[in-house]
Formats: sequence, structure tokens, C-alpha cells
Amino acid sequence: MNPPSDFQPACPAPLQGGRVTLAHGGGGRLMHNLVREVFAAAFNSSADHDGAVTQVPAGRIATTTDGYVVRPMFFPGGDIGSLAVHGTLNDLAMCGARPLCLSAAFIIEEGTEIEVLRRIARSMAAAAQSGGAAITTGDTKVVERDSGDGVYITTAGVGLCEHNLEIHPRSIREGDVLLLSGDIGRHGMAVMGARENLSFESSLQSDSQCLWPAVRSLLEAGIDVHCLRDLTRGGLATALAEFARTAGVEIELEEEAVPVLPAVRAACEFLGLDPLYVANEGRFVAVVPPRQAQAALIALRRTPEAEGAVVAGTVRAQRPGQVSLRTRMGTLRNLPMLSGEQLPRIC
Amino acid sequence: MNPPSDFQPACPAPLQGGRVTLAHGGGGRLMHNLVREVFAAAFNSSADHDGAVTQVPAGRIATTTDGYVVRPMFFPGGDIGSLAVHGTLNDLAMCGARPLCLSAAFIIEEGTEIEVLRRIARSMAAAAQSGGAAITTGDTKVVERDSGDGVYITTAGVGLCEHNLEIHPRSIREGDVLLLSGDIGRHGMAVMGARENLSFESSLQSDSQCLWPAVRSLLEAGIDVHCLRDLTRGGLATALAEFARTAGVEIELEEEAVPVLPAVRAACEFLGLDPLYVANEGRFVAVVPPRQAQAALIALRRTPEAEGAVVAGTVRAQRPGQVSLRTRMGTLRNLPMLSGEQLPRIC
Repeated sequence: MNPPSDFQPACPAPLQGGRVTLAHGGGGRLMHNLVREVFAAAFNSSADHDGAVTQVPAGRIATTTDGYVVRPMFFPGGDIGSLAVHGTLNDLAMCGARPLCLSAAFIIEEGTEIEVLRRIARSMAAAAQSGGAAITTGDTKVVERDSGDGVYITTAGVGLCEHNLEIHPRSIREGDVLLLSGDIGRHGMAVMGARENLSFESSLQSDSQCLWPAVRSLLEAGIDVHCLRDLTRGGLATALAEFARTAGVEIELEEEAVPVLPAVRAACEFLGLDPLYVANEGRFVAVVPPRQAQAALIALRRTPEAEGAVVAGTVRAQRPGQVSLRTRMGTLRNLPMLSGEQLPRIC
Repeated sequence: MNPPSDFQPACPAPLQGGRVTLAHGGGGRLMHNLVREVFAAAFNSSADHDGAVTQVPAGRIATTTDGYVVRPMFFPGGDIGSLAVHGTLNDLAMCGARPLCLSAAFIIEEGTEIEVLRRIARSMAAAAQSGGAAITTGDTKVVERDSGDGVYITTAGVGLCEHNLEIHPRSIREGDVLLLSGDIGRHGMAVMGARENLSFESSLQSDSQCLWPAVRSLLEAGIDVHCLRDLTRGGLATALAEFARTAGVEIELEEEAVPVLPAVRAACEFLGLDPLYVANEGRFVAVVPPRQAQAALIALRRTPEAEGAVVAGTVRAQRPGQVSLRTRMGTLRNLPMLSGEQLPRIC
């Protein structure tokens, strides 16, 4: 993020409302005012050098990035700002890493209201705080009308791995137990409801939240976590299909064990969607050794983020690369990875 | 970056050409194929978890991010991919940090040719290698036609500060000497030439390059570097205006000392631009103590990236917050920060 610029006697007036112009992306005074008054102010960042410098202990750091293009930008339970921060905090948490610092880069369409940017920046700051992380560096670019769509945000993050585990799909073993942190499908259905103005809109809130407290609880309980994955695009089924492929195992999922809110189930039926493939932004699966499954479940349920955690399945060796759904009728059904597009621009 | 997906017996055919569809952003098989065959292949990344884990020693790390929206995406001397990598490597270098790892997030407009993505990915991989860094994690999103414009890239990076200096505008002192690493204005004029199909197009190449080797040379020579800044949007004048404001000093720049290629000068005159405000992507200024200025100049000139380095000015106390240009006629002229927009979407 570049420095504010208040040294000019003929400094332009502060940004009281108004809209973003191409000049706000030009690298000059208007851009510096925008950065200072909207972003640096919300993030409590000095923003006067090209990067941020942070002290770390010797050990392993996790790094991750995600772009966010969700439409609408504001939806029940969150907005593109909180989502962008939660998403990157969660990717760090899925490495078992304590979030340390985040960056935020904005691609803004000309004509976007500056008040919209302010709302997004405040929301990002609050979300970062929920994960104990600071937004320490950033960037803004402006593109012409019809070369963008409001605001796109790319966050990146650095976290500290304060354990010796190798939390990765390749650590998954036959016999491991699959825990699911709560009910699924709320983010996808809340965004679809807001987008299409559907009648279920009011009752459904996105599950978008920071998952680090739930992961920290697992680590503090001494659980030998084998793998973690938050359930985003493609939903639970696609996450498990990725596990099965990378680890060369079969994953058996108990249909009856997977919590789905009645409102989500109804919305999915209305839209012809399977909740197992619908996007979440505050749910994850943990793969743990069988002897620690109960202790892990207790550790998860102690946190508000995962108080609805359940044992949802097991890891088997029979059909490597496959996810099998044990249905309510006791039959086994193959769950493939999501094919094609289900819900565009859900995150 | 998400895992490849080759476990499906009925896996879609490889991406031989073709164009990006919304389904390539859906989180399912098409997206996994795109990530595997285009990005993970070029970056030599396994890409099968939500983040990348890297070992670091105890000490300071630098983090930075930048979004890239340059048009055209391919221009003489580079493209949006090499630019996105050089830009983030350079922001790390300006913290005096050795580049360690990079992330890359893509926002792709529906309809973009997959071959264009391949070219960009190859270019990014080569640029990362020039800085000794790996691209270890990433993300792809797809937006509808008219909600984007080809490809936008946001890179973020982590680097290691292997020194005890505080390289920051607040370390600038009265009497310090300002070094400039080479001729200015080439990136801006090369992109403008390519965009407008102007006659000077063929003779001008962007200066886009990784500056870490030049910075490393300064550090290895034991120079007590006070501040570094690469010259991007807003050009040399705006970078110096930022220094003057943050450090509360006057910076006197010698007009005669600033190298400008004749072709750049001619192009600037044609377009009515001042080269001091034109964007660069491979040039930087270093502020060093006067007793080390000659040693620093020698250290810079030893590297191909800064073989044209010059002493360009000094830091004074007279007019805090101001940049003064000592003209060829010996007069002093105030150089304000760039006001408004000069060259939209130059980076």
C-alpha cells in the first residue's frame, strides 16, 4: 500500500462520499487519499512502504491466497470483505497455522461508490480481528466500467505452524475418522437467495466465519490431526473427492450424519441442487486417527464455530480414489467431484 | 490452489486450446483440470492443499501484494504475467528482503483463450525463477463477459530480511545521497506504444525486471541502506514526493543526472508527458549515507539490472515535505506528487 499524501498545500478535499474514478488508480494524490482515508484508516495500517515487515520465530510458515468475486457483494451473514478475510484465514487454519498477517488487493470498477468501499473495509477489519490477524499491506487498482463489476478482492495470508504435524491429504490413513464441523450448504443458499430475490432469502444466513478457533481447539487438545479442509466451491463432496484422490483411499460418508438445515434442504430442492455440492464458507472437515475421534469431537464442540460438529464418515482402503455415500437406505452411492458449474460467483 | 482431478474414469479431455467458461471457475473437475494443466504445470507446484508450508529461520519476513490490470496484456519487453511477478519481487526487494515464495490469484474473463493463460503462466514461472522464488500457491476465479477484461492477476510474496537495517522512508536523514538505478520512463512508454499502436512502439521495451540482484549487491557490499523504492505508477517524482512527506525532508533532484533514453523523451514529448511522472517497472532509488555513496554506486553498477546507476540527488532539511528539481539552467522547481491520472492501467 502506498503512502498517504497530505503534504500538498493544495490537497484535494477529503473523500466525502462520491464515486471512484480512473484517477483514483493512477498512483497520484487521489489514490493516496483513497488508500489513506478508506483502507489504511479501517485497517489501522501506516501503509507508507511497499511491504510490511514482521518478526517470526524459526519454524514453518503457511502462505495462501484467494480471489473473491461474489455477487451480490452484500448478502445475509456477510459481504465480499468479510468473506475475503475469512476465506484466507480459513486456508491458513487448514494448514494448522495461526494467522499472522494478511494482504488485501482491490480491483475496483470505475463508478463504484466510495461508501461501498468503506463498508467493505470496515467489514474486513472486523473479520481480521476475529482471527487475531492484522491487514498489513495492500494495493488498489481501478478499471473502466464494464471491465469489472464493483469490487474484486484478493487476499493473501501468512500464518505460523506451531506444531509438528503434517496436515495434508497425504497424511490420511485407512481407519481414520472424518469429522464435519457443522451443517452444510448455508453460504451457497444465502447468496443464491440474495441474488435471485428468492423467498427463502430472509431465513438463511451465510456460514462465513473464521475457523481458526476451532482448529486451535483441536491442536490444543493434542489431537494428531491428519488433514483439514474447508468446504468452499464444490462443497463437501468435492472436498472429499480431492482427499480420496490425493491420499489414494476410499472415503465413506454417512448421509444420515451430515447436518442440513430444513431451510437449506428446501432451497436446494427448489433449485434442484444437492447440498453435498453447495458452497460453504465456515465449515470444514477434520481427518483424525480413530483412537482420538471422540476427544477431537469434544474439542470441536467446545468452540462456537464448530458446536454442531459430528462424526460423518471413515477412511477405507477398498476403492482407492472414490467417495462412497452410505445412504439412509443403507446402500452405497459413488459421489464424484462436482462436474461443471453449479453456482457461479459464489465466493 | 486446489488439487488436480485425474481420478475420474470419465475425466474430461485435456485442455487442448479452447476458451475459459464459467464452469472453469466452479470448483469442480474443469477447474481442477485448468489449474493442473495450465498453472500447476508451469509453476511446478503440487497444488494439492489450501496453502503452502515453508520453513523459515527466526527473524523478519517481508510481505507484500499487488494487483495487475495492465492493457494490453502483452507488450514489448513483457506481459501481465512477468510484470505481476517482477512487481511483487521488487516490492520485497525494496524491503531488502530475499524473495522466498509467491502466490498468484487469477480473475479470468469468460471467453479468454486458454493458450493466453498458458503464455502468461510460462512467463510468470520464468520471472519467478529470475528472483530465485517459487510460486507455491494460487487461486482462479472466472467472471462473466463484461465483468472483467481478459486476465487480472494479484500476486503476493514473502521474503526474508537477512540484515539488521530498517529500510524505510523514516530512516532517511539530511545529507543522504539519492541513487537512481538507471534510465526512466520505458515501461510507461512501451505500454502506451503498444496500446495506441504508435510509431515509437518498436524501438521501446519495458524495463520490467527483478530488482533483487541489484539490492542484494548493495547489501553484500555492506551499504547501510536507509531506504529503497521502486518507481511504478506516478514515476520518480511521486516516489520522491512520498519520501519527502514521510521523512519530513526536502529532496533535491538533479535534472541533468536523470537518464532518459532519446526514444522515451521523444515519445513523452509527443504525448505531452513528463518522464519524471511516467511509470517504470524495473527501476528504483536507493537512499544511502553520503560516506557510502560511491561504494553503493559501484555495487549497483556491478549488476546488469542497475549498470546505468547514477547519483541523482541529495536529502536536505530546508523545505520539509518538498521535492525540488535542480534544472539544467540551475533553477529550482517544485515537483508535486502526480495529480490525477496520467496513464490508466499501466500496471
